[in-house]
Amino acid sequence: MFLKNTWYVACTPDEIADKPLGRTIAGEALVIYRATEGVAALEDFCPHRGAPLSLGRVCEGKLVCGYHGLEMGCDGKTIAMPNQRVRGFPAIRAYPAVERHGFIWVWPGDAAQADAALIPDLHWANHPDWAYGGGLYHIRCDYRLMIDNLMDLTHETYVHANSIGQKEIDEATPVTKVEGEHVITSRHMEGIMAPPFWQMALRGNGLPDDQPVDRWQICHFNPPSHVMIEVGVALAGRGGYHADPKDKASSIVVDFITPETETSIWYFWGMARNFQPQDEALTAKIREGQGKIFSEDLAMLEGQQANLSRHPGRKLLGLNTDAGGVQARRILDRLIAAERGESVAAAA
Amino acid sequence: MFLKNTWYVACTPDEIADKPLGRTIAGEALVIYRATEGVAALEDFCPHRGAPLSLGRVCEGKLVCGYHGLEMGCDGKTIAMPNQRVRGFPAIRAYPAVERHGFIWVWPGDAAQADAALIPDLHWANHPDWAYGGGLYHIRCDYRLMIDNLMDLTHETYVHANSIGQKEIDEATPVTKVEGEHVITSRHMEGIMAPPFWQMALRGNGLPDDQPVDRWQICHFNPPSHVMIEVGVALAGRGGYHADPKDKASSIVVDFITPETETSIWYFWGMARNFQPQDEALTAKIREGQGKIFSEDLAMLEGQQANLSRHPGRKLLGLNTDAGGVQARRILDRLIAAERGESVAAAA
Amino acid sequence: MFLKNTWYVACTPDEIADKPLGRTIAGEALVIYRATEGVAALEDFCPHRGAPLSLGRVCEGKLVCGYHGLEMGCDGKTIAMPNQRVRGFPAIRAYPAVERHGFIWVWPGDAAQADAALIPDLHWANHPDWAYGGGLYHIRCDYRLMIDNLMDLTHETYVHANSIGQKEIDEATPVTKVEGEHVITSRHMEGIMAPPFWQMALRGNGLPDDQPVDRWQICHFNPPSHVMIEVGVALAGRGGYHADPKDKASSIVVDFITPETETSIWYFWGMARNFQPQDEALTAKIREGQGKIFSEDLAMLEGQQANLSRHPGRKLLGLNTDAGGVQARRILDRLIAAERGESVAAAA
Repeated sequence: MFLKNTWYVACTPDEIADKPLGRTIAGEALVIYRATEGVAALEDFCPHRGAPLSLGRVCEGKLVCGYHGLEMGCDGKTIAMPNQRVRGFPAIRAYPAVERHGFIWVWPGDAAQADAALIPDLHWANHPDWAYGGGLYHIRCDYRLMIDNLMDLTHETYVHANSIGQKEIDEATPVTKVEGEHVITSRHMEGIMAPPFWQMALRGNGLPDDQPVDRWQICHFNPPSHVMIEVGVALAGRGGYHADPKDKASSIVVDFITPETETSIWYFWGMARNFQPQDEALTAKIREGQGKIFSEDLAMLEGQQANLSRHPGRKLLGLNTDAGGVQARRILDRLIAAERGESVAAAA
Repeated sequence: MFLKNTWYVACTPDEIADKPLGRTIAGEALVIYRATEGVAALEDFCPHRGAPLSLGRVCEGKLVCGYHGLEMGCDGKTIAMPNQRVRGFPAIRAYPAVERHGFIWVWPGDAAQADAALIPDLHWANHPDWAYGGGLYHIRCDYRLMIDNLMDLTHETYVHANSIGQKEIDEATPVTKVEGEHVITSRHMEGIMAPPFWQMALRGNGLPDDQPVDRWQICHFNPPSHVMIEVGVALAGRGGYHADPKDKASSIVVDFITPETETSIWYFWGMARNFQPQDEALTAKIREGQGKIFSEDLAMLEGQQANLSRHPGRKLLGLNTDAGGVQARRILDRLIAAERGESVAAAA
Repeated sequence: MFLKNTWYVACTPDEIADKPLGRTIAGEALVIYRATEGVAALEDFCPHRGAPLSLGRVCEGKLVCGYHGLEMGCDGKTIAMPNQRVRGFPAIRAYPAVERHGFIWVWPGDAAQADAALIPDLHWANHPDWAYGGGLYHIRCDYRLMIDNLMDLTHETYVHANSIGQKEIDEATPVTKVEGEHVITSRHMEGIMAPPFWQMALRGNGLPDDQPVDRWQICHFNPPSHVMIEVGVALAGRGGYHADPKDKASSIVVDFITPETETSIWYFWGMARNFQPQDEALTAKIREGQGKIFSEDLAMLEGQQANLSRHPGRKLLGLNTDAGGVQARRILDRLIAAERGESVAAAA
């Protein structure tokens, strides 16, 4: 159960740099590639004999089927085929696709409703003061289990006990609020010692690393399944999250969760930071560390999914720490119902 | 089709020495661990969000969920969770579990009927004159195919042709008798030369290894699926199985067959011997040899299961050599019917 | 949907040289082996306890079950079993099997209709002027997708772009004709330069390799699923395919496509050539090259099958280049309907 009329992150530019990419997004098997007109997404199904177009190649900005050379337009209409008239060939489905903020976005639903203005504005993606590094995991779980995971960081204490987890996270009660379709779960820890990552960041901003700090984690959920987490530390008593930039260090944990099927996801994770943005070695080091830490969630999420698949009727608890995920699911339920209601109305 | 109201061997103490173990026993997905109160077995499902508890850890004798730190009691009731009141949390199912004779035993059925006195008495497991070594295999076959295998050792001549098989086994007709729920299939070979394993055992008991011996294999089936095989040799003409201990060498092949699903098993195999029990190198050597020999059965059992799954209606033959397995199945059929009948009566 | 009352290539003599072979042919799980009476094919199911006979061995020309030593005749009747009377044992199904032309042929349907005279006559297989080399691939696709592949060699330009593909193939229009149950798709290229393989063949026949040639590809489909492709070059203007043997070099691409299941095949590929037939190093070199080239089709065929399985109702195009495959499918449809009709009549 996922939204169809929405923008999902489908891949990174790297993934289509030199050949088309086959990828299932929200149940739709797509071929994504870079055409003369820009990025394009089509059904991964050649109208000639059903071969996957993703096994083909891009020649002079056109997608060419790797089986018999059919040349496909990014509108889903066949352009040409050796020795054939192609006018009567059936079209395949084309999906709106946009490159923006360093990602390729795809709209798997009704193309008529696709509006590039609905792609979220990621200020850090296009600003010289910020650097970004990230990666991609394929995980066999419902995308909502990953939303739950990210909206309740108490799991850090247990899943990431040897890296970023610390008892203080567990002890600080999170607060969740809902603003329209936006869910915010905040947790503040005051007067604690900064863990190693934040000591490094403090030094990077010319601040002392051996004094108490105020630390925050502010998780933002936005539909369909984007979770951005503002994280940072400020010297204790300077206003915490609201402290003057010269007194703090901060970054954003970036999570685009793209459903593949009902029980699997493409998980685009990363970190945007606004300290030492030119330091590419630091970007690589952070990415490597984050990659290791985030991989610790995989076994848990897949085990949880296996358990839930085995016991589909079983009711889970919704505690105060779960409020972020619970509120996100409520918004999703409402939007999915609306989307399906509209479809019904449109069909009637 | 297997019994539920019975004790199965679920694991060895080693397997839960430093972390909880997830294992499906007779269709029940369990987490097994060592609690302060002793060994414990619970549903492998955290009541909070359905995470597998087997991915957690044991802290100070309590099972702690590896996702958000819920602390579980061995009665299936939540003890605590950081920053939460847990009184209203639903309990998960707890299964009777007992450590005895060097194994962890679990009762997957109705806990009210579990009685530790029903665990079989393994005299060799707790006696200084005996040594035990063994291992565990996972095999994709109905547990009854393994009972058949062990109650008809004519297969040794073919499956184990290069190790323990010998033509004399094939030529000696086995005799099967049933005593209540106990099936015994015996085979005696007289005046033959001892194979290498038994030559070694004879020497270990201070007996000559180059003289004719009488050899025996006495297979004991007991429900639910335990097969113990008394094996040994005596100097020829001294009474065979009944010979005076000073004239013979013997051991017990130990087989606990624990159904996982309808078509897969956990197979705990081993050998208990009463010669040179202090010789640990010998124990290791026997275990290694037995492990290799018993692994030769895997492909056959899995191939047989695949064939039977493909032809579920097809009738198999029950020859005189199959009598042990056939009688064991009859007892199982009767006990399973009784168990299900009782359940029906209890529900009515 | 495949024919059952027909001869399929089941394996090569090598595959049963020293042990029985388990292989599913047209949905029938067989054990194939070399008996005293010649090659034999039986159900891969021991009548005793259902073990796969293919895990057994051949002793003195008889198949012996690897589990309990049952000895099976190549008529499907049990010959003997240690210490047992076998007269009442149920027979298993025996399948007609013939060794001819360097292959083992099996008839998976009604044995009464099997006639060895229906095995195709492969003149090159038994003639000293010809040499043959080939291999076997297992591919997860409907056997008809491989027929399509081989009856439309335009795919060479795309799938085999880096080896045998060349633009001229694409530019020459193929002609398809049907003669009874025989489909022929021909393509002729005139006055082109010979690609490396044919340069070598020309030299082998004492002909110049640097002059224009006429080249041909003549694909022959015969039921159930054999495709033989006559390929060759002649010095330009000497009559092409019909040129005098001294002015040309030619060979035959051999393809036996044996359905395993509805969506998987055993693909026996090879090349028969009538130049330098004694040169075994050349045979090995050609086989290696062909094996690499033919392996390039695997991903495409399996991807195409996956797409078609996902969209079973979707209609494919039948272009003029597809005519060979389309005609072959028509013949198959007719023969399969006839076979099923006969079966119905026989049952009535």
